[in-house]
Amino acid sequence: MKKNLQTHLDQLILWLRYASVSGDPEYDSELRAAADWLIKRLEKLGFKVELDETEVSPVVFAEYYVSKDLPTVLVYGHYDVQPADPIKEWKSKPFEPVIKNGKIFARGVADDKGQVYTWIAAFDEWLQKHKSFPCNVKMMIEGAEEQGSEGVAKYIKDNTQKLAADFCVISDSHSLSPTQPMISYGLRGLVYFEVTVKTLSQDAHSGIYGGAVLNAATVLSQMIAKLQDDKGRILIPGIYDSVRELTTKEEQELKNFPWSLSQIKSEVGAEVVAGDKQISAAEKVGALPSLDVHGIWGGFQGEGGKTIIPAQASAKISLRLVPDQDPQKISKLVTQYLKTITPTGVTLKIKELHQAEPVLVDRGTKYFKAAEKAMEQVFGNKPVYELSGGTIGVVADIKNTLGIDSIMMGYGLPDDGLHAPNEKMDVEMFEKGIQTNLAFLKLLEEIPHKNLKSH
Amino acid sequence: MKKNLQTHLDQLILWLRYASVSGDPEYDSELRAAADWLIKRLEKLGFKVELDETEVSPVVFAEYYVSKDLPTVLVYGHYDVQPADPIKEWKSKPFEPVIKNGKIFARGVADDKGQVYTWIAAFDEWLQKHKSFPCNVKMMIEGAEEQGSEGVAKYIKDNTQKLAADFCVISDSHSLSPTQPMISYGLRGLVYFEVTVKTLSQDAHSGIYGGAVLNAATVLSQMIAKLQDDKGRILIPGIYDSVRELTTKEEQELKNFPWSLSQIKSEVGAEVVAGDKQISAAEKVGALPSLDVHGIWGGFQGEGGKTIIPAQASAKISLRLVPDQDPQKISKLVTQYLKTITPTGVTLKIKELHQAEPVLVDRGTKYFKAAEKAMEQVFGNKPVYELSGGTIGVVADIKNTLGIDSIMMGYGLPDDGLHAPNEKMDVEMFEKGIQTNLAFLKLLEEIPHKNLKSH
Repeated sequence: MKKNLQTHLDQLILWLRYASVSGDPEYDSELRAAADWLIKRLEKLGFKVELDETEVSPVVFAEYYVSKDLPTVLVYGHYDVQPADPIKEWKSKPFEPVIKNGKIFARGVADDKGQVYTWIAAFDEWLQKHKSFPCNVKMMIEGAEEQGSEGVAKYIKDNTQKLAADFCVISDSHSLSPTQPMISYGLRGLVYFEVTVKTLSQDAHSGIYGGAVLNAATVLSQMIAKLQDDKGRILIPGIYDSVRELTTKEEQELKNFPWSLSQIKSEVGAEVVAGDKQISAAEKVGALPSLDVHGIWGGFQGEGGKTIIPAQASAKISLRLVPDQDPQKISKLVTQYLKTITPTGVTLKIKELHQAEPVLVDRGTKYFKAAEKAMEQVFGNKPVYELSGGTIGVVADIKNTLGIDSIMMGYGLPDDGLHAPNEKMDVEMFEKGIQTNLAFLKLLEEIPHKNLKSH
Repeated sequence: MKKNLQTHLDQLILWLRYASVSGDPEYDSELRAAADWLIKRLEKLGFKVELDETEVSPVVFAEYYVSKDLPTVLVYGHYDVQPADPIKEWKSKPFEPVIKNGKIFARGVADDKGQVYTWIAAFDEWLQKHKSFPCNVKMMIEGAEEQGSEGVAKYIKDNTQKLAADFCVISDSHSLSPTQPMISYGLRGLVYFEVTVKTLSQDAHSGIYGGAVLNAATVLSQMIAKLQDDKGRILIPGIYDSVRELTTKEEQELKNFPWSLSQIKSEVGAEVVAGDKQISAAEKVGALPSLDVHGIWGGFQGEGGKTIIPAQASAKISLRLVPDQDPQKISKLVTQYLKTITPTGVTLKIKELHQAEPVLVDRGTKYFKAAEKAMEQVFGNKPVYELSGGTIGVVADIKNTLGIDSIMMGYGLPDDGLHAPNEKMDVEMFEKGIQTNLAFLKLLEEIPHKNLKSH
């Protein structure tokens, strides 16, 4: 095993050397070289591999077909990485990986090349001992994830037959520690708006008009204040109507989820957990919609004391959505409410920038149970279950277009520094990821073959 | 008279040719040349003139002493001008005055050289017919008005004896039309703050923390919304306690003041008059305190849909104050209230940038009555009375330090384009200004001499 681990690390390091930054023409050749490297690696294992062009970066699609009587697993991941800026803050070079104190330092090692490689390494080891897999294996490793997976939704729609599978596994998240594994089974959706209010045709002087005309910055603030009460509860009528009720088990899990104020404080310096004290932070982020003002601007922002009355002011506002909220319906409720609270004489402009659906994964399937069991075997503890507060658009596309659930097994750690300088992945987590994937394949062997009638 | 008018215009044009822009070292020699020109002009009339240095631009102080038994008038004005930018939008050169269609076009002609010159011209004409003035005359013409009269408050404090007078006249405002004169008898004061709220030590990601931590932009908006109700009424406790009650006469005047929504709309594009429909725009701006957010900023303001939770957000907020509100007391009330409405866990930073006192001029004095009468004689109509919504710090300094009222007789027009390209003054208004000042001097003759006992 130790010899194998070194081989896997050597391979991963080769892959990490490609600066496969997406969304920047300067790095396009590196991005394609990283895809090529992946293709060759998977071909060596016996996969049939294709490079599928999309509107943005190409998808590496790989298939290892065994039998129509076996279930098919689709492994999703991405080979593109975030830019390395600010370069100065890196202690080692972002695309010259080093292993130090049991950690691999490189841009993209945790997000997501190292996690993807746990699957490749597991497939490699499995095939060293067995003639074939206990399932059909497909891999969809994309190159635009850091660009919001642009082009991938269309790619999935255009390739439903090719991508057809019984379930999907994704390792692009994290566990809580090397002894506390975690599976994410929910993702929030999103509706994102840019809102502009205009009260005048030009800025006015408060010495001439102060008190007689509407101030756009004040009006916008008053409107934002009407979106939530002091406890953060969203005041848009109907917004909670379709929020899925948690099971008693889930409520208990969220209550016990290890995410305390002191941890949040150490992470981002919060002095309080926002909102209702009866509701845990994990529940607020995972099981409830939230509303945030991401940016606000209007009027004079320079030094000193100019006394203009701003003619217009804007804000970027989004709502994170939970199952079973429908982004299109929520978008309408938000737009309608914003109109309702716009004072007479004010022009409102709403630009919708983004929509994404929330996702909930069925924890009752045999595949999910196999994943739980594999994690417990390797990590020594049962996994905790996360309702993630974030949004991964592809998971909703996989669910809606391919009709399958994604099991999100995280092999990162909370302190990996994704998108930040000195991104790292612990060698221990890399190794445990490989072992968990091997255990998962072993458990799949025990799952009864597919009912032939279903074909 | 017509010959005299041409002479006055010729002189004014000479003065206007100096680019006496204050606050810009590049124009310093022009500024001083304009002061020198003024000194020579006044010396020629028999004034004793001094150039008094201040912390910023020098003050031209002139005196024509007649008798200790006569009242003393202090004429205040300024010889500095706004920058001419944007130069491109000028139809003629800003410092090469032209007279076209009965209007003098030049930077500073209405603000304030042309209006100051109506007094110089009146003194000139008076002295052509009389041996002496019916009053002692002092002039304080400063050079930093466009820089907020920096240094002038101290200058007044240091020269109370020299500047001592019975009343002050200022022509640095406007009438409504060549047949509708206006006297301003009130100015608002000001307290100006920069407010910053901080909820986190760094921006957070709404996919990880959305719902669990306080959003600085939302908190700031909620706090701003608590400053005023939907009708614009300020909610800071005690803020209206010391607001002077209007007399029935003033109420009537403000109700009838010719400033309609359609005019405000044509000026700044407002679709509604803000606030309580029972209160006129003129009353809102002149007789009530107002609160404005001059600028607001926080979080992501770029293109697209970044999903950060801003750690901090700021706003510039001021209150315009009316008599008898005390800026220091109001400042404390605002600061105290802001603290009260700051949610737990939020750091509030308040930076006070500016304070100015409101001013009310006694309309019952014999000097005020003489000004009214002079205006009516020349313009053909009784003046309207303005409670100005703006702030002129010097007027409060004159009142508080010298203990005298300022009578603000406006010879500009609302469309003069102060601070804008193609600033102009109507020749008719220039001429009526001179005639009004002459009528005013004539009326001063009829005022009983000072009671000697009071000396």
